[in-house]
Amino acid sequence: PQIQYESLDYDVCENKLFHAEQRKRLRDRFSLRIHVIRWIIFILIGIITALNACFVNIVIDLLSEQKYKFLKASVEQNVPVNGGDGDLALPYLWWLLLSVVPVAVGATMVTYIEPITAGSGIPQVKCYLNGVKVPRIVRIKTMAVKTIGVITTVVGGLAGGKEGPMIHAGAVVAAGISQGKSTTFVKDFRIFKAFRDDHEKRDFVLGGGAAGVAAAFGAPIGGMLFSLEEAASFWNQNLIWRTLIASIISSFTLNIVLSAYKGLENFTFTGLFNLGKFKEPLTFAYFELPIFMLFGVAGGLLGATWNALNTLINKVRRRFVPWKLGKVAEAVVISIIGVTLATIMIYFIDDCRPLDKERISYPVQLFCEDNEYNAVAALWFQTPEATVRALFHDEEGAHNIRTVGYFTLVYYFLACATFGLNVSLGVFIPTALVGAAWGRLVAMQFLDWFPDAHFLNPGKYALIGAAAHLGGVLRMTISLSVILMETTGAETSFFFPLIIALISAKWVGDYFNEGIYDMVIEESHAPILPWEPVPQYKGLTALEILSKPVVCIKLRDSAHYIYEVLLRCDHNGFPVVDDVKDNRRCEGRVCGIILRSQLIVILLKSLYVENKRFWLPETSIQTFREVYPRYPSIKSVRPLDRKENYTVDLSMFMNPSPVRVNNHDSVPKIFNIFRALGLRHMLVISNENRIAGIITRRDFIYK
Amino acid sequence: PQIQYESLDYDVCENKLFHAEQRKRLRDRFSLRIHVIRWIIFILIGIITALNACFVNIVIDLLSEQKYKFLKASVEQNVPVNGGDGDLALPYLWWLLLSVVPVAVGATMVTYIEPITAGSGIPQVKCYLNGVKVPRIVRIKTMAVKTIGVITTVVGGLAGGKEGPMIHAGAVVAAGISQGKSTTFVKDFRIFKAFRDDHEKRDFVLGGGAAGVAAAFGAPIGGMLFSLEEAASFWNQNLIWRTLIASIISSFTLNIVLSAYKGLENFTFTGLFNLGKFKEPLTFAYFELPIFMLFGVAGGLLGATWNALNTLINKVRRRFVPWKLGKVAEAVVISIIGVTLATIMIYFIDDCRPLDKERISYPVQLFCEDNEYNAVAALWFQTPEATVRALFHDEEGAHNIRTVGYFTLVYYFLACATFGLNVSLGVFIPTALVGAAWGRLVAMQFLDWFPDAHFLNPGKYALIGAAAHLGGVLRMTISLSVILMETTGAETSFFFPLIIALISAKWVGDYFNEGIYDMVIEESHAPILPWEPVPQYKGLTALEILSKPVVCIKLRDSAHYIYEVLLRCDHNGFPVVDDVKDNRRCEGRVCGIILRSQLIVILLKSLYVENKRFWLPETSIQTFREVYPRYPSIKSVRPLDRKENYTVDLSMFMNPSPVRVNNHDSVPKIFNIFRALGLRHMLVISNENRIAGIITRRDFIYK
Ligand SMILES: Nc1ncnc2c1ncn2[C@@H]1O[C@H](COP(=O)(O)OP(=O)(O)OP(=O)(O)O)[C@@H](O)[C@H]1O
Ligand SMILES: Nc1ncnc2c1ncn2[C@@H]1O[C@H](COP(=O)(O)OP(=O)(O)OP(=O)(O)O)[C@@H](O)[C@H]1O
Ligand SMILES: [Mg+2]
Ligand SMILES: [Mg+2]
Repeated sequence: PQIQYESLDYDVCENKLFHAEQRKRLRDRFSLRIHVIRWIIFILIGIITALNACFVNIVIDLLSEQKYKFLKASVEQNVPVNGGDGDLALPYLWWLLLSVVPVAVGATMVTYIEPITAGSGIPQVKCYLNGVKVPRIVRIKTMAVKTIGVITTVVGGLAGGKEGPMIHAGAVVAAGISQGKSTTFVKDFRIFKAFRDDHEKRDFVLGGGAAGVAAAFGAPIGGMLFSLEEAASFWNQNLIWRTLIASIISSFTLNIVLSAYKGLENFTFTGLFNLGKFKEPLTFAYFELPIFMLFGVAGGLLGATWNALNTLINKVRRRFVPWKLGKVAEAVVISIIGVTLATIMIYFIDDCRPLDKERISYPVQLFCEDNEYNAVAALWFQTPEATVRALFHDEEGAHNIRTVGYFTLVYYFLACATFGLNVSLGVFIPTALVGAAWGRLVAMQFLDWFPDAHFLNPGKYALIGAAAHLGGVLRMTISLSVILMETTGAETSFFFPLIIALISAKWVGDYFNEGIYDMVIEESHAPILPWEPVPQYKGLTALEILSKPVVCIKLRDSAHYIYEVLLRCDHNGFPVVDDVKDNRRCEGRVCGIILRSQLIVILLKSLYVENKRFWLPETSIQTFREVYPRYPSIKSVRPLDRKENYTVDLSMFMNPSPVRVNNHDSVPKIFNIFRALGLRHMLVISNENRIAGIITRRDFIYK
Repeated sequence: PQIQYESLDYDVCENKLFHAEQRKRLRDRFSLRIHVIRWIIFILIGIITALNACFVNIVIDLLSEQKYKFLKASVEQNVPVNGGDGDLALPYLWWLLLSVVPVAVGATMVTYIEPITAGSGIPQVKCYLNGVKVPRIVRIKTMAVKTIGVITTVVGGLAGGKEGPMIHAGAVVAAGISQGKSTTFVKDFRIFKAFRDDHEKRDFVLGGGAAGVAAAFGAPIGGMLFSLEEAASFWNQNLIWRTLIASIISSFTLNIVLSAYKGLENFTFTGLFNLGKFKEPLTFAYFELPIFMLFGVAGGLLGATWNALNTLINKVRRRFVPWKLGKVAEAVVISIIGVTLATIMIYFIDDCRPLDKERISYPVQLFCEDNEYNAVAALWFQTPEATVRALFHDEEGAHNIRTVGYFTLVYYFLACATFGLNVSLGVFIPTALVGAAWGRLVAMQFLDWFPDAHFLNPGKYALIGAAAHLGGVLRMTISLSVILMETTGAETSFFFPLIIALISAKWVGDYFNEGIYDMVIEESHAPILPWEPVPQYKGLTALEILSKPVVCIKLRDSAHYIYEVLLRCDHNGFPVVDDVKDNRRCEGRVCGIILRSQLIVILLKSLYVENKRFWLPETSIQTFREVYPRYPSIKSVRPLDRKENYTVDLSMFMNPSPVRVNNHDSVPKIFNIFRALGLRHMLVISNENRIAGIITRRDFIYK
């Protein structure tokens, strides 16, 4: 069943009730208090997002440690230490078990409890920030399922990361805290009531997303830029400010907690996904710039292929496995394939290296001499993050070309098959991993051919490869580059190589398809607005895209008519008109707009002209906020019949200043207005100020 | 004489000519080419801005080196080396000469050639990005005067920095390149014609400002955020992108050139104002957080005092020294006072330290033993930047409390007297210097009292002090913090202390007055729009701020009437109306808006209905662009008398889709629309679509 997306209202409804509240606030000196509370909420968002990230991180850490320790022990028991030809069957079975069980648990939870938690969560957050209300996306229940889901699947060893879900968690935390109530727990804390509207909530979610990025990567500026890159357009300084504070607080909290947990002093642990600080400053020479560009081109090609392949796989999947149980089975199958491929690699590739206790967490001797370890097993017996770190920072010659080559190949396809499964997993880490792997591989191969080319530092090229591949898959260039800089502590001067790789990758990739997040959004048919109007709309005027006749309501209309309209059509906004002749409302003169939700409240509470003296004194904007955001449906209103001759006077409730444009205005122009002001409805009027049509988000989506 | 500020037009005039061009472009596949050209221009902006910055930097470097070498030699000649009681009179005179001459040259140039170049330039760039056209601010001549001005004054040793002028230079470069013509050289290169309008130019200037910051501080992300913090509101992703690229290119170019100049390999020289990378990662403990906050409070207080004092001094100055020669004399006097105070300090404070060749550029032995140098002279005998670097990075015990104490005091007041002189100088470096000095001073003092408090790393506290003082004076928190991070290479985890100091400073400072740039802007009476509508406007409606009766023009009006209107009133926009009864134009029905500049072109070129067949075929939007940006005045139009019965049909020229709002819309709402869309004129209409008034930038400024 296709989801019915609705939009968020960023435009504030400044009706009479709103102005009454404003005046009251001015009297009460409430304005200052509200500012302070808003700040406190942003700070809370930062803290709680970080705590959630810490929790996920620590649990994954502990469980992975147990798992890989156990596997290591099992290998050592079953394969005689001194070179004997042991049997890997039992360790393989154990590995299967320890992978399949968590994955199955995670997949089951996602599939049966909350299907919206599948995937990374970033596409949904992106939609939300763009102004699309994705149902159930910012609920506590969603967050709980997502948190457990990501823990189980990362521990299960699927090719995915935890950063996407963390960013999503940040958004949920923001929406949850700022509203002071929870639908999941059916609990209203009766605080923060002033923030219960779409406008405020969207601002908070922006901060939450930034805090999530900051917590996931330890990159506060990257977090702010992520929000900026995904949702800019109607920013102002105050909002940037609060977002930055939320992300700084978040990365700081994370820092404190994880430093304490790791027993480090002086807060030197930065970020969950600290890709490891490069010890030597990274340098480069002029002649490397074309190489970086070539890396970017390769990243663009590989990324575009990956995106296309992944979309194809997911289409096939949706087509052939529509049943819930099948989806769980799928995840299990992919998990089994992964473990099997890894085992085969470990078994057949013979790559022993001298032991270096510092660097390898779970060295497995397996078929190797004493004081050596199996390098293939080392690549697989750790979380993907640790592998990225190893690829960035291991010294020259620490890896074998063949091992890394097969590993890259296997991981590329494994990641492709994994993203899109019904489990909560992000795509950032596997992408970075694949990129780092091929980047290092290329450098190693060339170093093999030209041993004198000392500039070919494999760690550096692993970073460039990761940037190129991330650019090719995600295409979020600005925030990505900053995140990479922040998590690796690279010099400002290394910004340039990174951005060259990222830009080339983006441009090459964009030639073929969109970024993976955008492709996911497209598959979900969410009506997301692009940054610029699509070229097909150039030269058109409002007249050519508007909807008409418009369903309108008179300034004083009968309750019965309103009830009928709400039953009959499911639009969410209705122009309010006066000067109507012969009941032809759709030719009336515009005086405002009223939302479906407001009309429902009016009918529910019987706010009619005839019984004004009963409700007038105690009706305020709070009456409408109370039911936010889950407005009752029209079905819950007692049917009105024609004989009850009640009248509704909308002049008090409607938004008297909707944005109006002329029917001859060009589409690019009104698109910019729509996007810059974050509108939901735009009224098109004729020269006589008569309603000519209505434009919503859907009308801007080119079909 | 007060400057008559006009506004920039960010709203694109989509008239028939525009659409004709669009269609032509679509046919010619010109769109893609224009995109590519736009990118090239942004890249060029980055490169040229950086080259200018390099030039300034290298020239200042060379000249300062000569100056201080010479002074050192002179001191050593006149003061017998072995402890003898020598005479400083001659070196003092030399110092005076070498300071007064450049300062006098710089002040003369600024005062007599281009007075707009006085000061930092950042306030003017800020105005421009806000949408105020500051006359002559983006001309090549301005840039030349500013460049020479800043070189002379920094070499002259005034308490100022070169970064503000560099940012200004970036803006000029952007405006210059993008237009492909120069008014100063009366040269039109006939390229980039498509970009000749306010909208495009403003976007380019945004990139130029960012490139300037990037070049001045070696901080590309800081540059982007600077533009964002000063001019956000109507951003979109593409613009962020281009701005970022411009600043990255700029910092990279700077890097290459300066690395080559300094003979460094591997591009390790980052930025002009590299505050020096901290060798050890900066760390901090929980209990230091309140200390950072106290530093911030102190910074806020000191900064607010500085701002108030500086504004006061400048008021007095403007009042009592209105003559040009007096302004030059003033600069000379301040320069003399500076040198004298420094000499007195050097003479009376006895602070000898063991020589450390590495660190001090021009060690002067002066009254000291062999193998010692005079620490006071060392503070003064270098550019302020080098002093900041010394305060950040010198080891514990490198300075004497008394020396730094006096130095702080002198520099605080010196900087205060300097900013506002008729010379080109920035305020960033002196502010950072004073902050670093008192920050280090406090740490040194406490370390003296509690020798066991090892956390009191003086370099770290110098950085915190600089942040606090910068926050207190400038109040640009976001970009400042990032710039400080980028130029000192501090860890991400140290972001938190910096931002705590900056925020406390900003909040405390904001309680008393505004940032120094905003105060300069206020003094200049430029109609800059704040981020949010002023509180006094809450609850008002458009009706209460609009101007009426509005001077309107009929869709088909007589050329004579238009001529009269242009002569009679100096508004820049006139609503176009039809359905006018009894010639009461100001009650007509709105159909568009026409700019003064367009009307002048129409009259100049006689684009009348009566001789349509002559001009119609060859008139295009290019006809109007050709005279951009210096439109001729109405005086240059041949007077039309009543007997020449020409008619002008505006339907082809006017902007048919001006933003219209209703007369009952609230002021905060229309303010947001005005700001978000970067408008110049906003038409207020009644319910019947009749013109009710007009609102421009000036009407939003609270008087
Ligand atoms: N009051 C109305 N009368 C007639 N057509 C309408 C009205 N409101 C919206 N439409 C049109 O109906 C189509 C679907 O819009 P829809 O009803 O989903 O808008 P909405 O629910 O009010 O807003 P959104 O879905 O963005 O939250 C659009 O093409 C829109 O132009
Ligand atoms: N066409 C007009 N008729 C009447 N009043 C106007 C008109 N245009 C502007 N005003 C009013 O005159 C005052 C000064 O505006 P001004 O003439 O400077 O506007 P402008 O020059 O068109 O725009 P700007 O100065 O922002 O570039 C403002 O209060 C404005 O509302
Ligand atoms: Mg809808
Ligand atoms: Mg004006």
